[in-house]
Amino acid sequence: MIAVDWGSSSLRGYRLDQHGATLEQRSSARGILHCDGNYADVLAGLVDGWPDSTILLSGMIGSRNGWIEQAYLPCPAGLADLAAALQLHHDARLPGRDLWFVPGVAVQGAGGTPDVMRGEETQLFGLDTRAGHAHVCLPGTHSKWATLHDGAITGFATAMTGEVFALLRQHSLLGRLMDDGDGFDAIAFAQGVQRSGDAGGLLHHLFGVRALGLFERLAPSAAPSYLSGLLLGHEIRDLAAPGAEVHLVGNTTLTTRYAHALKVLDRTPVDAPESLAARGLYRLARQRGLLG
Amino acid sequence: MIAVDWGSSSLRGYRLDQHGATLEQRSSARGILHCDGNYADVLAGLVDGWPDSTILLSGMIGSRNGWIEQAYLPCPAGLADLAAALQLHHDARLPGRDLWFVPGVAVQGAGGTPDVMRGEETQLFGLDTRAGHAHVCLPGTHSKWATLHDGAITGFATAMTGEVFALLRQHSLLGRLMDDGDGFDAIAFAQGVQRSGDAGGLLHHLFGVRALGLFERLAPSAAPSYLSGLLLGHEIRDLAAPGAEVHLVGNTTLTTRYAHALKVLDRTPVDAPESLAARGLYRLARQRGLLG
Repeated sequence: MIAVDWGSSSLRGYRLDQHGATLEQRSSARGILHCDGNYADVLAGLVDGWPDSTILLSGMIGSRNGWIEQAYLPCPAGLADLAAALQLHHDARLPGRDLWFVPGVAVQGAGGTPDVMRGEETQLFGLDTRAGHAHVCLPGTHSKWATLHDGAITGFATAMTGEVFALLRQHSLLGRLMDDGDGFDAIAFAQGVQRSGDAGGLLHHLFGVRALGLFERLAPSAAPSYLSGLLLGHEIRDLAAPGAEVHLVGNTTLTTRYAHALKVLDRTPVDAPESLAARGLYRLARQRGLLG
Repeated sequence: MIAVDWGSSSLRGYRLDQHGATLEQRSSARGILHCDGNYADVLAGLVDGWPDSTILLSGMIGSRNGWIEQAYLPCPAGLADLAAALQLHHDARLPGRDLWFVPGVAVQGAGGTPDVMRGEETQLFGLDTRAGHAHVCLPGTHSKWATLHDGAITGFATAMTGEVFALLRQHSLLGRLMDDGDGFDAIAFAQGVQRSGDAGGLLHHLFGVRALGLFERLAPSAAPSYLSGLLLGHEIRDLAAPGAEVHLVGNTTLTTRYAHALKVLDRTPVDAPESLAARGLYRLARQRGLLG
């Protein structure tokens, strides 16, 4: 089978054997924002030369702005629920291929406000967690914090941490006080994480970045790390209980930073393996009986 | 005397009589960001034809990026402290004028993180509060929340609420889901204020603006009001205790919105009069004995 993890800014394809092992992997920057709507052609290029008929696709490709919009399943959402809801499509430009789209997952959060994920549900099904409850964080532009119970997604919350950091860095008064570099200052980062626990709230703590700079207590080179720590500190305090064990899923630069912040705040980070999307798609295909 | 309230984006001058009543008022957009450093010339133009020798100046004109940098006095800071710290300057382009600059005020907040104000201290001295404690909010790009005791500034905190709103509106994913108009939707605003009390924190609640839109539970025309309410709700919960009486100082559009949010959250708004800066500068001049 072929597993396709198709997000907003990237596209990854995996050719998997009958046991889910990766035979070959291909990736490109042809996320849905960079396809001009020619999804079938882009996919045909990705899988060219791979003879498998079964293709599973997850991620923003199934969003309203993607190829074929898929529903959101409600929580709790287990592997069997998602597998049963896979949608089969055929396309003339992909003869002999069965395209199976994975739905997203939605939840009614606190106060009835909804939340959604699309793509992360598949990564969560790729994760090996013990029976019982597990907490998972997928850091990113919009971080997802999910709770699993016996492998089913029972709830989750999205935090706009990465986007807010980028906005403040690029467009705010605070950004103008910072050096351009991407260097990581571990001490300033930890100070920012700690600061998140003080009285006054995030909107007040943000101004502290400026005030510390004014009194030369925070160097322009250290300020981005401090700001990052401040935002992650707020996110973690709000979305993970003290003492919690948190599985971290994502690229190493981000998960390393989150692990650091979790430790400062007495939560326990647990590393997750790479390529969870491929493994999740394999499990969905097997559950649905698509692997012969 | 002449009172000059000189901020980043605006300049206001008041000619006051011996009792502090305004004889004449002038204003322009020549804030310190729009003076090209020609402060003396801009001031000479502002006060042209006003014969008074005593000029008091407050606001960002005394900042590092302004004309002559003034110190920050520590809290508690009373009228007598500020009056004693007024700095006298003369300038050849302003013959016969005594220029008195008002210092800023600084505080060591929670965890030792500093905070600063420059200009707002003068407005606070213009306010008539009863003896004992008073809470004051000066909403804006960077809102100030101050505590007074018998008229002295005992502490304060700045929240970047206005700037964060503008960033999200102009540059974020959320902004792209909103209509351009500035219409105020009181129901959506109150929903945002209420939402700020749910679990998950601000970074999570921000994503809810997107999710509500996705399920067509928040119209593009109502989303800016909801976002505004969400941010003000967080600011108020973090910086004013339930039941508190909060004096609101600033332009009516903003103070009306804050009053609305305060009421939703069981705090009591109290209107403040206009032109507090002029009154504060008058009181500082009188305290210093500059009025003959």
